[in-house]
Amino acid sequence: MTSEGSGTTEDSGEVLYGAVDLGGSHIGLALGTVDPAAGEYRLIARRNLEGGGYEGWAPVLDQIAEGILELGREVGARAAAVGLGCPGWVDTEKGETRFLPNLPTRWRDVPVARILGERLEAPVHLLNDVRAATLGEFTLGAGRGTSTMALFALGTGIGGGVVVDGKLRLGPLGSAGELGHQTVDPNGPLCGCGNRGCLEAVASGPAVAGTGVRLLRSGQAPALFELTGGDAGLVTAETMGEAARAGDEAVKRELERIARLVGIAVANVVVAIHPELIVLGGGVAGLGDLLFDGVRQELAERVRVFPIDDVRVEPAVLGTDAGLAGVLVWTASFGSSSP
Amino acid sequence: MTSEGSGTTEDSGEVLYGAVDLGGSHIGLALGTVDPAAGEYRLIARRNLEGGGYEGWAPVLDQIAEGILELGREVGARAAAVGLGCPGWVDTEKGETRFLPNLPTRWRDVPVARILGERLEAPVHLLNDVRAATLGEFTLGAGRGTSTMALFALGTGIGGGVVVDGKLRLGPLGSAGELGHQTVDPNGPLCGCGNRGCLEAVASGPAVAGTGVRLLRSGQAPALFELTGGDAGLVTAETMGEAARAGDEAVKRELERIARLVGIAVANVVVAIHPELIVLGGGVAGLGDLLFDGVRQELAERVRVFPIDDVRVEPAVLGTDAGLAGVLVWTASFGSSSP
Repeated sequence: MTSEGSGTTEDSGEVLYGAVDLGGSHIGLALGTVDPAAGEYRLIARRNLEGGGYEGWAPVLDQIAEGILELGREVGARAAAVGLGCPGWVDTEKGETRFLPNLPTRWRDVPVARILGERLEAPVHLLNDVRAATLGEFTLGAGRGTSTMALFALGTGIGGGVVVDGKLRLGPLGSAGELGHQTVDPNGPLCGCGNRGCLEAVASGPAVAGTGVRLLRSGQAPALFELTGGDAGLVTAETMGEAARAGDEAVKRELERIARLVGIAVANVVVAIHPELIVLGGGVAGLGDLLFDGVRQELAERVRVFPIDDVRVEPAVLGTDAGLAGVLVWTASFGSSSP
Repeated sequence: MTSEGSGTTEDSGEVLYGAVDLGGSHIGLALGTVDPAAGEYRLIARRNLEGGGYEGWAPVLDQIAEGILELGREVGARAAAVGLGCPGWVDTEKGETRFLPNLPTRWRDVPVARILGERLEAPVHLLNDVRAATLGEFTLGAGRGTSTMALFALGTGIGGGVVVDGKLRLGPLGSAGELGHQTVDPNGPLCGCGNRGCLEAVASGPAVAGTGVRLLRSGQAPALFELTGGDAGLVTAETMGEAARAGDEAVKRELERIARLVGIAVANVVVAIHPELIVLGGGVAGLGDLLFDGVRQELAERVRVFPIDDVRVEPAVLGTDAGLAGVLVWTASFGSSSP
């Protein structure tokens, strides 16, 4: 079976799935195959669309459907089922978005699975995007071979996900796993969610950058000044890391402070579920040992109630593909039956 | 089948189990029946032994075996299987204790299931005691009908347990669920575990009492003084609650501060697993609304990332029986086959 419409790839006969990573500024589309038991996946064709969507969800879904169909024409096969990672709360059973806070029109109660399903003539499955990334890393990435793990996605916001005894914890509307909204500093800075002292408020990309700008403007970061030419717009977790390695002591110490706050959040997850693995991903995790050393030290200092030699803290390995990869796993988990 | 040795009760033919709650100062023994699906259990006969055991584990196991056999003779039947709740880390598969920190001789690597099993001629199953209480409340108590919940046991220490999608999370040696060792105040007071600012260090019975003694001695708690006759030895969560209700404003405010710290720990569990239910048990939970109001308020203020109208915070209902009840559930879950 190699004809268009077969739902299998031309070469191997593996089932072909569509995967969509729906973001505010960009939308990733892919066709791919996945073998969860082997921990392997392959993205066969991909395409990026611009996000935006101030005109509402209808034209965005149009673009997505057209894009998936075009990818199918490119590879000469069509997707047997399609999954969407969505930035917010979705009813996975009904295949409807409930509230996507980062998209301009919020996508309240949009029957995405039905609309796309009709266009694509295939079952469509929704999942929160960071839960998808968690499933991706768990099944195909850093978590292969483990049973219980948590992921912290340290980006512009801080998302996460929890897998307990082999099963992704979804919770109502896929909302469980919001590890960035643990309170790590009860009287700390205001978070975007409205709480004070969330991990996101002290260790997200913007929090790291804000710390860097303070050091830059107060004359405490000569290497960072040189790297950025004094331009606050160029201060990021990445340039902070470079500055620390180039000798900025204040930058290094502040990054350690931030790492230790991540370590508190990690420790709180560890005492609660005692996972085998904590995965750190996102731009801030790109700091490497400047982050991981502090996290591991704090974890060891905080968790004394039981031995934690068996708890690893490791970087994510799938990078920005984690979401698409996880969507493949999610979609494949339904078989090729309708949702 | 009503004869001794049948493993069933005389009246109903239900399977009879033995349950042991192994503590430092006291050991609870019981024979009982349980119907997990109906959420019901019955303790048919029970007995308390003194704890202690400075001579080591052998005489303690002797007493337990003799006690269970005597209870069997009393009711004219014997236990088809026996479960032990243990205050520490146990290898549930091997039926061996690994480390029970609160018992005088620590019980390192004691093959309890084998030793008791030979004496009782029945399979013996071990479980951490607070995980047992969690299972008890989940199946037979406050958690009946729920799927995902966490329990905080606010006593001399603070233990806990987590049930995700219907399954008690054990973790290595049953160590998951140590919710009292979440860091809620990064630079807070020293905890018994060695960390600073654990929930246990700020909201356990001793922490509440310590706060009360400070208020008593500094003249800020006239009602507490009257209730206790100025005797610090009589300051407990219970007398603190009475003093607050009798008008001690400082006591009331300090209890609210403590409740809010519990609320932070509860909030951190909620964002991670989005449970339907948080159960608060132990002596400090006896404060009633003086505790629960502050916990619920803090939870609402802290968790803004998703709606939490569906998360209840409720008192435990099984009281000191929770451990024995949970051990019955645990033991019944193995059927009557050998472990």
